[in-house]
Amino acid sequence: MSEKYNLVVGQSGGPTTVINASLYGVIVEAAEKQDSIEKVYGMINGIEGFINDNYMDINKEMSYDDIELLRSTPSSYLGSCRYKLSEDMNDATYRLIFEKFEKLNIRYFIYIGGNDSMDTVSKLTRYADMTNSPVRIIGVPKTIDNDLMLTDHSPGFGSAAKYVATTVRDIVMDASVYDTKSVTIIELMGRHAGWITASSVLARKYEGDNPYLIYLPEVAFDIDRFIKDVSKCLETKNNVVVCVSEGIKDSEGKFICEYAGCTGVDTFGHKMLTGCGKYLENIVKERLEVKVRSVELNVNQRCKAVLASKTDVDEAVLAGTYGVDALLEQKTGCMVAFERIPGKEYEIRCKLVDCSEVCNREKVVSREWINEDGNDIGKEFIDYAKPLIIGENEGIIKDGLPMYVYRKDNNAKGM
Amino acid sequence: MSEKYNLVVGQSGGPTTVINASLYGVIVEAAEKQDSIEKVYGMINGIEGFINDNYMDINKEMSYDDIELLRSTPSSYLGSCRYKLSEDMNDATYRLIFEKFEKLNIRYFIYIGGNDSMDTVSKLTRYADMTNSPVRIIGVPKTIDNDLMLTDHSPGFGSAAKYVATTVRDIVMDASVYDTKSVTIIELMGRHAGWITASSVLARKYEGDNPYLIYLPEVAFDIDRFIKDVSKCLETKNNVVVCVSEGIKDSEGKFICEYAGCTGVDTFGHKMLTGCGKYLENIVKERLEVKVRSVELNVNQRCKAVLASKTDVDEAVLAGTYGVDALLEQKTGCMVAFERIPGKEYEIRCKLVDCSEVCNREKVVSREWINEDGNDIGKEFIDYAKPLIIGENEGIIKDGLPMYVYRKDNNAKGM
Repeated sequence: MSEKYNLVVGQSGGPTTVINASLYGVIVEAAEKQDSIEKVYGMINGIEGFINDNYMDINKEMSYDDIELLRSTPSSYLGSCRYKLSEDMNDATYRLIFEKFEKLNIRYFIYIGGNDSMDTVSKLTRYADMTNSPVRIIGVPKTIDNDLMLTDHSPGFGSAAKYVATTVRDIVMDASVYDTKSVTIIELMGRHAGWITASSVLARKYEGDNPYLIYLPEVAFDIDRFIKDVSKCLETKNNVVVCVSEGIKDSEGKFICEYAGCTGVDTFGHKMLTGCGKYLENIVKERLEVKVRSVELNVNQRCKAVLASKTDVDEAVLAGTYGVDALLEQKTGCMVAFERIPGKEYEIRCKLVDCSEVCNREKVVSREWINEDGNDIGKEFIDYAKPLIIGENEGIIKDGLPMYVYRKDNNAKGM
Repeated sequence: MSEKYNLVVGQSGGPTTVINASLYGVIVEAAEKQDSIEKVYGMINGIEGFINDNYMDINKEMSYDDIELLRSTPSSYLGSCRYKLSEDMNDATYRLIFEKFEKLNIRYFIYIGGNDSMDTVSKLTRYADMTNSPVRIIGVPKTIDNDLMLTDHSPGFGSAAKYVATTVRDIVMDASVYDTKSVTIIELMGRHAGWITASSVLARKYEGDNPYLIYLPEVAFDIDRFIKDVSKCLETKNNVVVCVSEGIKDSEGKFICEYAGCTGVDTFGHKMLTGCGKYLENIVKERLEVKVRSVELNVNQRCKAVLASKTDVDEAVLAGTYGVDALLEQKTGCMVAFERIPGKEYEIRCKLVDCSEVCNREKVVSREWINEDGNDIGKEFIDYAKPLIIGENEGIIKDGLPMYVYRKDNNAKGM
């Protein structure tokens, strides 16, 4: 029998509805492989917490029921961080991390996250190579934005798409009760990639239904053309629902919300956006003198577990289990990716892709999937996205409310 | 066999998740009583549409499947209006309406709506009395705000409460992933009554959980005290979630959102509010220098059918059927109301109350149900609200999306 080592798993970046489902997959698969894996540690608040000695022994601290609940609990059970490792491989942090790995007998590290987390996987792998460390590192994708390269789609997107499609359908119903002219502007997440916003096309109950207009960041946004589009719709329709990405920008690359003067910068230097919906609401009110409302779906897009897609949950679990298997095959520096198996029925298989080719790049919606006028989404996207929202997250509600697992200490002082 | 008459049903005011369930109750019960009721007409866009000859023959224009879908379709199938009848009983509109009733052989009118709709029922009943008209009129309550007098609660509230409790629970999960201090402000509906905002207390997974602070319009809001409350929470907690009603006001009755200069007036002269969450976000950012986000749940609170409470749906149907029965007993000028049957298990029965005592008044949350500091909700409210959110609206999703019934013409030009 070969020697047994420990595995550590961490979650990083913005939470999603299914990032804990991937954690579930890791824990369950590691338990299956107990001939090779001794303990499963969880990094509390990602690599940043681990650096500060913040971790847990998962099988010791979580009950069987807790682990089962991970499948349907949104947000990051282990906590998250937004921590960028130095470009300089001589930075002391690298040595510190690998010393901790060694001290804890850790040979396997799975990092569940998005673009920036794959950057962490890539850098740590480079350091491991440089130092001939036996530690193997695999990334498991997670992002509602669906902007990760080299994978058909990412866990987290299907549930976000389903939430958006359902909610836009609901809002369209709500917006259609009066027989007066009205415009409703729904602002959706997506800084640079319009995947989430494009999903609003699935809300249509029939061809030609609302949302009549959909604008993604992939196409330069022109306010005058937008007003023209809305006016034209109002000629034949009473209630016009428009979906816009938070990240729509003009032909010079200036975010529309910046016109309203409302941005900040997050720890990665990404511009934090809010308010293009509100800004457009005011413009429409002013120029068209019609009843306007703007609605921002906000964080609900990434945490509404009762509206998760079962397909997404199952695939998130699969990505976690596949990641464990890859580690045991001594793969490293890779991200688990999905590819569609050609055929009539939707089916995917996992593969590994090089993390360094994933990180710091963004996959956007193909221009051909957007109509020529840049205000609607084509059939290719619908065919692509439809299978991803199928299936319900059933049985998670008790006494009218969803049941979640949480760390008892996850809101303690100074944790 | 007695002579048969026709019934007309209308929907009015803001849409809710279950106003169509009441319509379903009316249609099904009228079909049961076909010995007395010939046709069921639907007013398109409420009394205003009816005045303009806009109505439909429901059983002729809707299929059996359409009618079944009403149970789980949010918004107002028949369309809505915000139309205020004149205080002057000599106004020609009254005569016009009753002439139409007579022409269509209508003896029974059910109006599903809130406060303002009960005002319409009350006025039309007064006119019928004055003119010895045989037309009988009953109101069926509908409001997410739960502010109708003389009833234990109103259809629409349970589903709104469930949506709010679930969503606040989700947002709390989402807000708790980083180990840095943060404040999340959730702005909830409720102009003058805090019922919806109070429901956020149900989001707590355990005693002492987020949302730590809850502010209703029933208690004068003081910004300095609010900042003190938040700071105190931040001393022992990382992530503080606060729920506020859109309608919180200071001790002089000025809406907090008015400080941000962002109000308008709707057709009933009600102040249209938006933005106290955003306003408080900026204040917290400025004074406490901590990460802050504000989230406005917006219209989702009244249209999220997949999160409807089955208790609420069933009671909405019951109110509709009870209304039809009351009409056939020649009752008029009344609203269907609920009262709890005393006992351990939650159970209600219907009764009739005088519409004129309901309209133009508002039931607010009792001061005793709010803690002394005015920043939390007591056990009495929890006991009151808990049964109202029980049960799921199952089986309404197909291919990942909820199925709704809609009028094909409900977004046509000039309708």
